[in-house]
Amino acid sequence: MELKKKLTDIAKRAQAASRFMLTVSAETKNEVLKAMAAALLDRKAQVLGANRQDIRKARTKGLSAAFIDRLTLNEKRIKEMSGSLIELTKLPDPVGEVIKAWRRPNGLWIHKVRTPIGVIAIIYESRPNVTADCIGLCFKSGNSLILRGGSEALNSNLSIYQILKDIIKKYGIPEDVISMVDTNNRQAVDILLRLDNYIDLVMPRGGAGLINRVVSSSRIPVIKHYKGLCHIYVDEWADLNMAVNICYNAKVQRPGVCNAMESLLVHKDIAVRFLPGMIKKFKQAGVEIRGCPITQKIVSSIAKAREKDYHTEYLDLILSVKVVEDLAAAIRHINYYGSHHSDSIITDNYENALEFLKQIDSACVYVNASTRFTDGYQFGMGAEIGISTDKLHARGPMALEELTTYKYIVFGSGQIRK
Amino acid sequence: MELKKKLTDIAKRAQAASRFMLTVSAETKNEVLKAMAAALLDRKAQVLGANRQDIRKARTKGLSAAFIDRLTLNEKRIKEMSGSLIELTKLPDPVGEVIKAWRRPNGLWIHKVRTPIGVIAIIYESRPNVTADCIGLCFKSGNSLILRGGSEALNSNLSIYQILKDIIKKYGIPEDVISMVDTNNRQAVDILLRLDNYIDLVMPRGGAGLINRVVSSSRIPVIKHYKGLCHIYVDEWADLNMAVNICYNAKVQRPGVCNAMESLLVHKDIAVRFLPGMIKKFKQAGVEIRGCPITQKIVSSIAKAREKDYHTEYLDLILSVKVVEDLAAAIRHINYYGSHHSDSIITDNYENALEFLKQIDSACVYVNASTRFTDGYQFGMGAEIGISTDKLHARGPMALEELTTYKYIVFGSGQIRK
Repeated sequence: MELKKKLTDIAKRAQAASRFMLTVSAETKNEVLKAMAAALLDRKAQVLGANRQDIRKARTKGLSAAFIDRLTLNEKRIKEMSGSLIELTKLPDPVGEVIKAWRRPNGLWIHKVRTPIGVIAIIYESRPNVTADCIGLCFKSGNSLILRGGSEALNSNLSIYQILKDIIKKYGIPEDVISMVDTNNRQAVDILLRLDNYIDLVMPRGGAGLINRVVSSSRIPVIKHYKGLCHIYVDEWADLNMAVNICYNAKVQRPGVCNAMESLLVHKDIAVRFLPGMIKKFKQAGVEIRGCPITQKIVSSIAKAREKDYHTEYLDLILSVKVVEDLAAAIRHINYYGSHHSDSIITDNYENALEFLKQIDSACVYVNASTRFTDGYQFGMGAEIGISTDKLHARGPMALEELTTYKYIVFGSGQIRK
Repeated sequence: MELKKKLTDIAKRAQAASRFMLTVSAETKNEVLKAMAAALLDRKAQVLGANRQDIRKARTKGLSAAFIDRLTLNEKRIKEMSGSLIELTKLPDPVGEVIKAWRRPNGLWIHKVRTPIGVIAIIYESRPNVTADCIGLCFKSGNSLILRGGSEALNSNLSIYQILKDIIKKYGIPEDVISMVDTNNRQAVDILLRLDNYIDLVMPRGGAGLINRVVSSSRIPVIKHYKGLCHIYVDEWADLNMAVNICYNAKVQRPGVCNAMESLLVHKDIAVRFLPGMIKKFKQAGVEIRGCPITQKIVSSIAKAREKDYHTEYLDLILSVKVVEDLAAAIRHINYYGSHHSDSIITDNYENALEFLKQIDSACVYVNASTRFTDGYQFGMGAEIGISTDKLHARGPMALEELTTYKYIVFGSGQIRK
């Protein structure tokens, strides 16, 4: 009960603060962001000290090197965090944008205007830079933010949070605009997820376990940044050089991210010409290939792709390869096995390109480009808080606009309904 | 298990059909809608016969006259249903609209394009006309629809559904584009709400009990059409004649709907001049007034408004009235007690109007107009599937656009990520 009361109180105050934010100008928000960026640099010793505590604990617990790498901050990473806050000041303010406006025959003037969502809760795992990034993005978009980070990064997160909160206070803005749940009690998440009277949106950032848990127990709308099981389909009409370059880029350039290719589909009539060279190049880069029976026939000594492979986001130098009958089979495969994140067709056939774009049910659908471009920065949004694999509210890369909603403001002159 | 298997099968087939819908042209959809409208008129005897069965059962069960009125169909209501389908054919097709498009420095051409959401489930209560309306709106917006109506209207719903489904089949479109859960087993809803792999959105249409149940157990994103606790604030600078007309309209013209006024706030400096005449007019219309202590002082023999009244959506000829200190107090009251649906200020003061528009956290915020305009038709959308009280995805009146999402389609020419 103690914890429930405490969290409800945090959420209530976050809501009140979010209403105050409606009165804060774009100029003031940018000034605060600049001051936040400076404070992170000024007080970096404090952040690094807190981070060393977390790293020491993680080592004692025997956590993996990859985990400790994600957890670790250094001067460069702090500079990047600070730089991201500065970048936000250069982006247009999403709040107040008139999305549409029209006049009704009765003289009512209706404006659909962008506004902050209100209170956003973010539940995340080990990277402490997420703390500063989320605070910056939510503040710029006029939202209150409740953060719940991973227990392993608690000291790092708290120190970043405190430094940024100090700046908010200094500018006379209610400090409840950002809050951090500083208990490691796992019950805290379940309690938060039932505070739908105060919290408008929850975004889990982490693995499937976390996301599943949030979706199962939340009364608050959730936007998921779920897995990226991305495909490239090399069509019968593909330019083979281009296909090799794009597939190589999509698999090898950074295999651990959600927009990397996990599954390669190849039209049957081009497979014999395309696959041997492609697979050779992949093997030289250390990519393990798991192929369908036809792939196994075309290139020797390839492991067999099982049904499970086509469902797997490897996030690693592993690739499933399947030869398909035609475009329709490729589309069916992608819509069935994919995660509706990013998929690309390589083709010089105009009609096939348009069919693929129309029928693939994914957030980002490409012709003749690498799936690796699915990213807020690459899309030109200037920022990114994640890539939504949901269809409601926001789909694909999410930045400032996606952290807003809208309201209708209506100017009348005495109109009543007949 | 039998039921779970059956419902999963319905949802899977709805998803497959939704992908087929991506290939159906706007022209074909409009032809189908016209044929549906004609079929409803041709086969009205069948609908009325089924409806009589439902009415007979409802009478036997002793259901209220108001309930039976909502349940009852007649020639006029069938004509209206048919007419609504024709109206949809006149509206622009939302699918395929390019919301935005831009070119990146690397030559990538990014288009943000409107697409159907996919599979929508609607869980609704007694009005059988909802069946035809929802089928029309979801079909026009290219979505598959799973309907789950109230048990009392099952025969009426099934007959409308069958008539419209026959048309869909006739046009060679997979009939799974519309499905109806025809069991009265209440477990069906709980099972549906866990099929988040196949269903993209659920909309409960009904009372608080239904909505609460759906929100609590759904893994699927929900858009709520919840209550409308709408306010009008009569500012110190109001034109009093206009204020009387608008307040009267907002309360009396149709008190049982979600955009009717439930609570009237009046600036203290105008209360003595405004309230006696206003309340007299309300009383003549049979409105019961529940006032704050100051209201009670100004106008005699008025019941006391208790805390609970300010939280109540009466949907009836009852009104709570409160005298407030100033604009800021009115804004605080509305943001605290309101349901964030529709709120209006009556004022001739420019700055107060803008402050109200900025600070009120509601879907529709008005100056000098009746809250009764919050409605898809009144807003010029040409249709309405409900009024969202949520902030995510859709806020306020929902019509065809709000039944879509978007995807990014990206035209490349061999781009890879550096």
